[in-house]
Amino acid sequence: MGAPTFKELRRSYGFDEVAIVPGEVTINPDMTSTEFNIGHHAFDVPVLASAMDAVVSPTFATRMHEAGGLGVLNLEGVYTRYEDPYSVLEEILSAPQSEATGLLQRVYSSPIKDDLIGRCISQMNNGTVRAVSVTPQNTKRLSPMAVEAGADIVVVQSTVTTARHMSRSYRGLIFSELRHNLKVPVVVGNCVTYGVALELMETGIDGLLVGVGPGAACTTREVTGVGVPQVTATLECAAARQEYFKRTGRYVSVITDGGIRTGGDLCKSIAAGADAVMLGTPFAQAEEAPGQGFNWGMANPHPELPRGTRIRVGTKGPLKNILFGPTSVTDGTQNLVGALRVAMGMCGAMTIRDLHKADMVVAPSIKTEGKRAQMVQARD
Amino acid sequence: MGAPTFKELRRSYGFDEVAIVPGEVTINPDMTSTEFNIGHHAFDVPVLASAMDAVVSPTFATRMHEAGGLGVLNLEGVYTRYEDPYSVLEEILSAPQSEATGLLQRVYSSPIKDDLIGRCISQMNNGTVRAVSVTPQNTKRLSPMAVEAGADIVVVQSTVTTARHMSRSYRGLIFSELRHNLKVPVVVGNCVTYGVALELMETGIDGLLVGVGPGAACTTREVTGVGVPQVTATLECAAARQEYFKRTGRYVSVITDGGIRTGGDLCKSIAAGADAVMLGTPFAQAEEAPGQGFNWGMANPHPELPRGTRIRVGTKGPLKNILFGPTSVTDGTQNLVGALRVAMGMCGAMTIRDLHKADMVVAPSIKTEGKRAQMVQARD
Amino acid sequence: MGAPTFKELRRSYGFDEVAIVPGEVTINPDMTSTEFNIGHHAFDVPVLASAMDAVVSPTFATRMHEAGGLGVLNLEGVYTRYEDPYSVLEEILSAPQSEATGLLQRVYSSPIKDDLIGRCISQMNNGTVRAVSVTPQNTKRLSPMAVEAGADIVVVQSTVTTARHMSRSYRGLIFSELRHNLKVPVVVGNCVTYGVALELMETGIDGLLVGVGPGAACTTREVTGVGVPQVTATLECAAARQEYFKRTGRYVSVITDGGIRTGGDLCKSIAAGADAVMLGTPFAQAEEAPGQGFNWGMANPHPELPRGTRIRVGTKGPLKNILFGPTSVTDGTQNLVGALRVAMGMCGAMTIRDLHKADMVVAPSIKTEGKRAQMVQARD
Amino acid sequence: MGAPTFKELRRSYGFDEVAIVPGEVTINPDMTSTEFNIGHHAFDVPVLASAMDAVVSPTFATRMHEAGGLGVLNLEGVYTRYEDPYSVLEEILSAPQSEATGLLQRVYSSPIKDDLIGRCISQMNNGTVRAVSVTPQNTKRLSPMAVEAGADIVVVQSTVTTARHMSRSYRGLIFSELRHNLKVPVVVGNCVTYGVALELMETGIDGLLVGVGPGAACTTREVTGVGVPQVTATLECAAARQEYFKRTGRYVSVITDGGIRTGGDLCKSIAAGADAVMLGTPFAQAEEAPGQGFNWGMANPHPELPRGTRIRVGTKGPLKNILFGPTSVTDGTQNLVGALRVAMGMCGAMTIRDLHKADMVVAPSIKTEGKRAQMVQARD
Repeated sequence: MGAPTFKELRRSYGFDEVAIVPGEVTINPDMTSTEFNIGHHAFDVPVLASAMDAVVSPTFATRMHEAGGLGVLNLEGVYTRYEDPYSVLEEILSAPQSEATGLLQRVYSSPIKDDLIGRCISQMNNGTVRAVSVTPQNTKRLSPMAVEAGADIVVVQSTVTTARHMSRSYRGLIFSELRHNLKVPVVVGNCVTYGVALELMETGIDGLLVGVGPGAACTTREVTGVGVPQVTATLECAAARQEYFKRTGRYVSVITDGGIRTGGDLCKSIAAGADAVMLGTPFAQAEEAPGQGFNWGMANPHPELPRGTRIRVGTKGPLKNILFGPTSVTDGTQNLVGALRVAMGMCGAMTIRDLHKADMVVAPSIKTEGKRAQMVQARD
Repeated sequence: MGAPTFKELRRSYGFDEVAIVPGEVTINPDMTSTEFNIGHHAFDVPVLASAMDAVVSPTFATRMHEAGGLGVLNLEGVYTRYEDPYSVLEEILSAPQSEATGLLQRVYSSPIKDDLIGRCISQMNNGTVRAVSVTPQNTKRLSPMAVEAGADIVVVQSTVTTARHMSRSYRGLIFSELRHNLKVPVVVGNCVTYGVALELMETGIDGLLVGVGPGAACTTREVTGVGVPQVTATLECAAARQEYFKRTGRYVSVITDGGIRTGGDLCKSIAAGADAVMLGTPFAQAEEAPGQGFNWGMANPHPELPRGTRIRVGTKGPLKNILFGPTSVTDGTQNLVGALRVAMGMCGAMTIRDLHKADMVVAPSIKTEGKRAQMVQARD
Repeated sequence: MGAPTFKELRRSYGFDEVAIVPGEVTINPDMTSTEFNIGHHAFDVPVLASAMDAVVSPTFATRMHEAGGLGVLNLEGVYTRYEDPYSVLEEILSAPQSEATGLLQRVYSSPIKDDLIGRCISQMNNGTVRAVSVTPQNTKRLSPMAVEAGADIVVVQSTVTTARHMSRSYRGLIFSELRHNLKVPVVVGNCVTYGVALELMETGIDGLLVGVGPGAACTTREVTGVGVPQVTATLECAAARQEYFKRTGRYVSVITDGGIRTGGDLCKSIAAGADAVMLGTPFAQAEEAPGQGFNWGMANPHPELPRGTRIRVGTKGPLKNILFGPTSVTDGTQNLVGALRVAMGMCGAMTIRDLHKADMVVAPSIKTEGKRAQMVQARD
Repeated sequence: MGAPTFKELRRSYGFDEVAIVPGEVTINPDMTSTEFNIGHHAFDVPVLASAMDAVVSPTFATRMHEAGGLGVLNLEGVYTRYEDPYSVLEEILSAPQSEATGLLQRVYSSPIKDDLIGRCISQMNNGTVRAVSVTPQNTKRLSPMAVEAGADIVVVQSTVTTARHMSRSYRGLIFSELRHNLKVPVVVGNCVTYGVALELMETGIDGLLVGVGPGAACTTREVTGVGVPQVTATLECAAARQEYFKRTGRYVSVITDGGIRTGGDLCKSIAAGADAVMLGTPFAQAEEAPGQGFNWGMANPHPELPRGTRIRVGTKGPLKNILFGPTSVTDGTQNLVGALRVAMGMCGAMTIRDLHKADMVVAPSIKTEGKRAQMVQARD
């Protein structure tokens, strides 16, 4: 007992290990509001679509806006590398599986063309909140151009982002300077811990993406061992947001990004303290998605560790059904907003911030036989 | 260690994670009594059949009474919506699987006919304790009619029920008024926490149904993330019952509802503090069940989140064998009352309330290879 | 957090959740002694064969004695019910699977014949320590006859045994009287808790069988929910033995019975405090076993809950190989005593009681893909 | 609760149960150094190849040196038992699977020839750090010959090694004498606990191999129940190294050996306190490996418990790709050093010892369906 150890390990939790406890009061789902904000922009639907080429095209971003959410356009994907991105997408989609990875590596080594930035931003309809995503390396160069061209929100995203990055090849981004210069809301990510979240908020950013190696099966965690399960990561970053809010009165939205597959995962993210979630594959499965039933990882974030495979994810239905139903599937992958409203009702939560107050329990998904699963499904 | 977190999560337990510890005294099973009460009604068998159309018809309720238990008739199913419910059942049973969900949605959108309420209650034999189930929305309208027509027990049931529900479309149910007006025992559910259980008991109700999203695989938990595993839910509600009993001297029966598949699950529910259990699919598998080997979810409790699939559960044998054996199957799905008596014997429990005193341990069902399972089975 | 709960659940552990920690000293396996005692009888090999008809015949008991262990003959099986037990065994072995359960129920409803008791005891060779097993109901009648006929050890065994059993049909066994009257060592079981173990030891018995519902997959636990994983059960009963030894100076052997499949399980039992283990199926797989590759549960211990199926377990090799090797299988099912000696060596344990001092850790068997398992196997 | 128990069990953790937490600072991977030392020898790559005949031949050791790591040659394998080891390897590789185990037992019962020791050491190229492995029984005889013949590092390795071994057949090794006599760095293993690690370091050794029964599926743990999961074992031995360093100022390298399959496992080992790792099968999968796609356990470490099977592990690519990429596989089995650099970057660690400071969390790999795994993979 108590043998000396090199360090203590604290327990962390993922979506499959927790559940939300119903509240002491219940309300009808039609009395709930799911609104959230990024800076001065308000959204009816607390769901963002990931900045992936197979998910968000300029057209898809417009559809997300119409639905009440936000689609983030990747400024370093095919839309800014190719005059005719749709023929490149077509090439990716029609390649044999054995050649897909090599093709993706070639496609994303073509340079970004500055003049295409304005074009793809302008292809988002008037009135759409235009959000674009850049990596830290390219932020200083690309983000002013994007804002100039009409971007309303800038997302600076890499696998792990801190307020203090050291590099030989470029001077670290100073997020406070960036925020000051751009004059539009800035969302930064990804991070997973209290300390980093607090430091990033102190730079003046408007939103924080949460999620590094979220699932046991994700590439980052399998390859590098680095990652924190999403419920714990969200709980820590939400604690930082509360602390920062208490100190400053400024509320920075926390957005859980990665590993969310069902309405249940979405609701758990918000109960854990998120103001919104960011989804990739569930939207790649929308009829309107440019990936047409495929999804793939993007340009390699770490030159020494190439990644990126094309995966068939299938098409599940129109975007509106995925968000609002109606649906006849009972696996939780459709009617995500409906599911959130029902969960809010069961927890007596009128708003997203009310749902933050819900109790949660550790309730592992012990695998049981198909039969039991089926039997319960029939009843509940 | 100890990074700031947004909220603490407590551990919860489901059936597959616990076991009952044998007692310091053992007794012969033939010395045990399994009696329990709802209000002034006493039952020899602490098992209720769920208010599902595939499980409880008026005839099945009579059979349950004869067996010593209680079948609850759903007042919002086919028996009160159709003059000829049996031809509707036949239609559901014979539909191709691909059309079943759509058909169920149509079947349950037909209106409830007030004049059929009396008819189906009267179809339960004389002497049968007649229990009927209604949803909170329809309770004020339907329950007085039901009592008028001879209902002995009224069950008010929805996915999550609290003593304080807020709705735009109808004034919340005041359970204390309801209980006072109906003058028959009222059972309310479902709930899973100490606080809600205590508040509901304070309204004067006679029984409490426990269970929200009981299993990791159940639809409510998959879709909305909401749920508490049944052992923990039962432990909390039983604690509320003890507290309420200590304060008032009135004993409110706690009934674990959902996720119970085997005699082992039943015994664990009672050891966790339940006075009885409510079962769906195990009775849908009875030869006498109207579902004839099928089961399905009922009218949609949440209009924004449609559910309901028809599932083949098979027919396992006559109701009496399921409750009392004899049986040659060793998977725990038959002879449920025999199993309870044996468990009581091993724990030295003469009564249900004695079994409440049994110790329990956390003992997860780690999956082992089929071979090991088989080897142990041969011996034990 | 800290919601009121009906009872606290402590954590318990099974074989697949723990591992033994190597010691601060190591010794060569050839310097270890695996001796243990039941009363005044000493055994070189701390392994008993279960009192099952498919495992221990009079001949097999003789073989176990020659190997240094102990085979327990069931006095309520075919050997005392039939003049020609071997033709009955042949009938069981050759029955089609669909008829096996029914046949077993018939075979074991034939009455025990007093005159066969002496015969089957005398069939164990001269010099063999003759151990026989009886159920509590029949102990007063059968055990004096058995001792009269030459039994050296009497095992009184049922699923759960306590020092205080209540029954309508027979006066509870008083183990202190029994021990006094029989004048041979008495082993009693099964039990799993400190309190019961201590009470049983106080009656003067010489050995204690540990194990109720040992595995998640075992029938007792699936059907009744009752059971305690074997590591925790053994730890508690061993604590009782130490307490009893401290008080009285008398050492009662603790024998872990049930769920042991590999050398690893055997070693963990002893590290958890057992002095020996009792095995069923591993011996049913011996070439010498009367079950010839089959095993089955015996006469139904609970008349209300019939059990007993015939299972093909296969034949793995001669008894000596199972106990001592040599073996080319690496799954831990052969050379059980060799495995124990190696484990003792790695823990620096010269004797069984030295191994009791080994540290253990909780180290769950998380299922990993076959590939990883295979890769590690190649190396270690 | 709190029933008396025979001993307390502390929780231990394996690779699949933990994850590394990103740091408060991030750095570019190209700014990291992965150097480590054994005695006065420095290595750019903190990876050793296991002393297995299918992994390290004299040629392979040279290749490992060229790559910046260290290959350890087994002095008790085919290279010192046979004049023509390559024809013996060929025989092993071409044997039918059913005859492989028997063949291996014969191959490794041929005696070690002293005159071959010098030859195989001299076959490692000039400039290569020549490391050889011996078992404790043969250390006194073989290690001086090896040093004489040019060995630069001696590894003394058995399943479990302590500073105090007792044997009838040979006088225990005194590591302090050995280290003094050999005058080259000595690495000893394997061990898994703080106390043994500290005692071994106090003998003056230069490196410590960590790992006994590392995985639930490994033979040692399945057969004998003995083992400690690698993360916990590494944490304890690293704590001993820190304590010893604090006392003496001498830094003994800790090398995690066994169960490492992916870059993630490697990074977790180092985050847990290891200075380097030792790998078997991942190198058996190199094109340059003598096993040509096979691996097998070596001469039996415990005469009473024979082991050793030949397993097909496949060939994955050239050694350089396994260590440094490029790779198109995303399962973490290639580009191990690239993965380490990326992990160091995410944790803000410039050196191996910086990575020792990273936080870790308990984050079990709960098995989820293939679909979820696939979905996450597409995104992250």
